[in-house]
Amino acid sequence: MASLKKPIISYFFYVAFSLLPYIVQAQNNTDDDAKFISSVHEFSLSKSECYAWLKSLCLDVGNRLSGSIGYKKAVALTSQQLKSIPSVTVFTQDAEVDVWQRGIKEVVEAIPQKGKKIKLNALAIGLSVGTGSKGIRAEVIEVQSLEEVDRLGREKISGKIVFYNRPMPSALVSTRSAYGQSIEQRGAGASRAAKYGAVGVIVRSLTTQIDDFPHTGALRYLADVPKIPAICISTLAAENLSALMKNQKVDIFMKNTSSIVGKSIDQSVIAEIKGSLHPEKIILVGGHLDSWDPGQGAHDDGAGCVQSMEVLHTLIALGYKPKHTIRCVLFANEEIGLAGGNEYARLAKQNNEIHIAAIESDGGGHVPRGFTFEADTSVIKPYFQKISKIVSPLLEPYDLTCNLGGSGADIGPLRPQKALLVGLKADSNRYFDFHHTSRDTYDAVHPRELQLGAAAMTSLVYLIDKYGL
Amino acid sequence: MASLKKPIISYFFYVAFSLLPYIVQAQNNTDDDAKFISSVHEFSLSKSECYAWLKSLCLDVGNRLSGSIGYKKAVALTSQQLKSIPSVTVFTQDAEVDVWQRGIKEVVEAIPQKGKKIKLNALAIGLSVGTGSKGIRAEVIEVQSLEEVDRLGREKISGKIVFYNRPMPSALVSTRSAYGQSIEQRGAGASRAAKYGAVGVIVRSLTTQIDDFPHTGALRYLADVPKIPAICISTLAAENLSALMKNQKVDIFMKNTSSIVGKSIDQSVIAEIKGSLHPEKIILVGGHLDSWDPGQGAHDDGAGCVQSMEVLHTLIALGYKPKHTIRCVLFANEEIGLAGGNEYARLAKQNNEIHIAAIESDGGGHVPRGFTFEADTSVIKPYFQKISKIVSPLLEPYDLTCNLGGSGADIGPLRPQKALLVGLKADSNRYFDFHHTSRDTYDAVHPRELQLGAAAMTSLVYLIDKYGL
Repeated sequence: MASLKKPIISYFFYVAFSLLPYIVQAQNNTDDDAKFISSVHEFSLSKSECYAWLKSLCLDVGNRLSGSIGYKKAVALTSQQLKSIPSVTVFTQDAEVDVWQRGIKEVVEAIPQKGKKIKLNALAIGLSVGTGSKGIRAEVIEVQSLEEVDRLGREKISGKIVFYNRPMPSALVSTRSAYGQSIEQRGAGASRAAKYGAVGVIVRSLTTQIDDFPHTGALRYLADVPKIPAICISTLAAENLSALMKNQKVDIFMKNTSSIVGKSIDQSVIAEIKGSLHPEKIILVGGHLDSWDPGQGAHDDGAGCVQSMEVLHTLIALGYKPKHTIRCVLFANEEIGLAGGNEYARLAKQNNEIHIAAIESDGGGHVPRGFTFEADTSVIKPYFQKISKIVSPLLEPYDLTCNLGGSGADIGPLRPQKALLVGLKADSNRYFDFHHTSRDTYDAVHPRELQLGAAAMTSLVYLIDKYGL
Repeated sequence: MASLKKPIISYFFYVAFSLLPYIVQAQNNTDDDAKFISSVHEFSLSKSECYAWLKSLCLDVGNRLSGSIGYKKAVALTSQQLKSIPSVTVFTQDAEVDVWQRGIKEVVEAIPQKGKKIKLNALAIGLSVGTGSKGIRAEVIEVQSLEEVDRLGREKISGKIVFYNRPMPSALVSTRSAYGQSIEQRGAGASRAAKYGAVGVIVRSLTTQIDDFPHTGALRYLADVPKIPAICISTLAAENLSALMKNQKVDIFMKNTSSIVGKSIDQSVIAEIKGSLHPEKIILVGGHLDSWDPGQGAHDDGAGCVQSMEVLHTLIALGYKPKHTIRCVLFANEEIGLAGGNEYARLAKQNNEIHIAAIESDGGGHVPRGFTFEADTSVIKPYFQKISKIVSPLLEPYDLTCNLGGSGADIGPLRPQKALLVGLKADSNRYFDFHHTSRDTYDAVHPRELQLGAAAMTSLVYLIDKYGL
C-alpha cells in the first residue's frame, strides 16, 4: 500500500440500487452459495497455491522496484505461474515508468557539539535526489509538521537540514488512519522545507513500533522549489537524535546518490477466465507486482498478487464456470508512479471494456477483516449482510464486514468508468511493522491468513458473478 | 486454552430479556459511551501496562505449572502488579491442586526393521504416568481415531504402542473447531488403547503447522483401565514416522518419568474495585495464571491475565467509578484440573456473591474479533449491535462481533449461578502455532493485539456496568 484514497460515493448509487432485485434471488440460492463458499475456504486453506507462489516470488525473485531486473523476473515468474492454471489466458500490458535507483548505501550521521557522532539507520525516500558523492553537512532543526516549517520560515530553516519527527500515532485503532495522518512528512516534507531554503530533510519512519528498521516510500517534489535530498531514519534513530538535540546544536551529515536514471517499459501481468454469458463484462481482482527495494515485497504487495492469482486458480479447480470474465491484474509501478493502473484504465476505456467490479488487495497478507466499498453502504450493506448470513452458518467464527472506504490505488483510475471499487481489508495491526522495510519478507506472512484473504476475495467474486451488480 | 465447552443456552434467556429496557436507555447515552470507549482504546494502545506486565511475567517468572515454584512466583508478581493500581483491593484464594512433574527429558525413538533409528521430538502429555527409567519398547501401530482402536481390538492392539496420527484439519476456518475435532486423541487416546492392552501411546501434536515443536496438554485416564504412558510428538516427527512405517514393521522406544508427585495449595489472585451502587454485584474478568511447562505461557494465558488486570487499571486511570464491583481473577490450575475455577465458584455460592457477568480471555493475545456469549444471541444481539454502533463511528475499522459460543473453562463453574458467561474471541489463526509449546513466549505476542483485547474487555465491562444486565 503506498497511499490512502478517500472514497468517492456519488458515482455508484446506481450500482448499489441495481442490487435490490438480486437480494430476493439470493435468498433462494442460500444453500448452494453456502456450500460453494465453504468449499472455496476449504480449498484455499488446504489446496491453494498462493503461499507457494509467494514463496517463489519472494525467494527466487525478491524485491522488484519499477524498472529493475527484479521486476522483469517477477513478470516472467508470475506469467508462468498463471499459465499453470488451466483455462486461463495470460498476457501483459506495457506501461512506461520512471526508473529510480537508490545508488550507494545511505549514510546519515548526527554530529553533536559535544560527544561522538552517531550513525542513524537510514533509507533514502523513493524519488529523492542525491546529495552528491561528498554528502552534505548542516545544522539540523527538529519539527513536528509541515505547518511548523511554515511558522519557522526562512529565517530558521534556510541552510539547515529539517528533521520531521512527528510519531505515527499509536493510540489510533486503525494503523492505516495513523499512517494517513503522518504520511505528509515523508511525501511533502522535502518540498515544504526547500521552499524556505533547507538543504535536506530527514524523516522519522512511519511505524508505531520503536525499532531500528528504516521505512522507505515515495515523495512528491513540487515543480517550483529546488529538489533537496530526503532520507528516512528508523524510529529508534529518531528518538535518539531528538534526545541528542535537547541541550545542544547538532549537525547532520547525510549522503545518498539516488536519482531517476531514465525511463523503462514495465509490464502489468494479466490473466483471465472468459465469461460464459457476458464475456464483455469484467470482474477484476488485483494487486501490484512492483515493490520497494528493501526486503522482498511480501506483504506489499506480493500477498495481494498471489491472492488475486489464487481467485482464478480456486474457481477453476472447483469447476466454477463464471458468467462474467474474471480477470486478475498484477499492476506495474504502484509504488512509484501508478503507471500500470493509469495505463490499464486508459486502455480499458479505449477498448470499451466494461468493469462491473474491481477488487484490490494491497493491505498486506494479514487476516482478512472484510471489504471496503467505494459505494454507499447503506444501500449495498443489506446485500453483503446477506452474504454474511450465507457464509456464517458454515464458517462460524469468520466475521467479514463491509464498510464504506477506499479500495486500492491501482484500480482507482477505473473510477470514472463506474466500476464498483472494493478493497480487501486486511487486519492492519502488524502491517506497519513491515511496510517498506527489509523486514517485509516471506516468513512475515502467515499461510492461513494469506489463504483466508484469497478465499474472501474468491467468495466475493463468486457472489458478484452469480448475482450481478 | 485447555479445552472447548459447548454453550449452554437455556439458563440465560432471563438474562437476555432483562436487557430490553436498557436498549432504549443506551440510545440516549450514545455520545458519552462513544467518547468513553474511544478513550479506553486510546489509553490501552498508548498508556496501558499490560504488555510490560506480560513481559515481566514471561521473562522474570517464565512458565508456571500448577504446584511449581514458578506458579508461586507468578502469584507474588501479579499480586504486586495489581497492588500498583490505586483503589484496588488484592487478595488470594487457595485451591488444592495435583502436582504433576515432567521428570527427565522425554525420549521417543523409531526403530525400523531396516535402517537407522530416528529420534522424534517429544513432550509427555500432562498427567501421563512414566514408562519407568528404562523405558519401554514395542511395535507401533498407526491409527486415525479412537474408533479405529475399537475396530482393531485386542488382537491388533495388545502389547503395542498406539500412534494416533489424525492431523488437526487445516481446511477449517476456525482452528478452535479443528482443535475440538482432534483433541480426543490426546485426551482419551491412552485409556482407549489401554482398554485393548496397549503398553503406551504416542500422539501427533495438535497444530495445523508441519514443524518440529511438540505440543503438550492434558489427558484423562479412565478409572477402569491401566494407566499407560502417553507422549506427544511434533507433526514433522509424526509425518516422518508414518512414512517410515509404510513398508516395514517399526518399533518405538519411549521413555519418560513424569508422574503426579502429590498435592499442593496454589492460589488464585483476585483484585477488585468495589461498586459504588451495587457492591454486592460482581462483573468478573479473568484468565488463568498457571501454564504448561515448555515456553513462557505468554499466549496461554499470560495474555488473558494481563488483559484482565488492565481492565481495572484502565478504568481507574480514566477516573471511572463503577456501579458494580469489578473483579479481576487470575485462576489457578486451569490446565491440569480446574481447581481454581471450581473453588472460586464454590466459595462464590457459599458467600452468596452475585455474578452478573463473567468474561474470560483464554484464546491468546491475538487481535480481538469479538465476544462469544453463552446466551441466546438472537435476543442479546441487538444490544451488542447497539454497542457496535456506538463504537464504530469513532473506531471505524474496529469490527467486533458477538456470537453464541463457549466462554471459558475457569468461569464455567459459575454457570449454575446464572452469570452471563462471555469469552473474548481472539483471532485463532496463529494460536495453535504456539499453544502448549516452547514457542509460547513473550515475543510471540504483538503489543497492539494484546492491548486491543484489553480495550475490548474494558469496553464491554463498562457497558455492562452502566446499563446492567
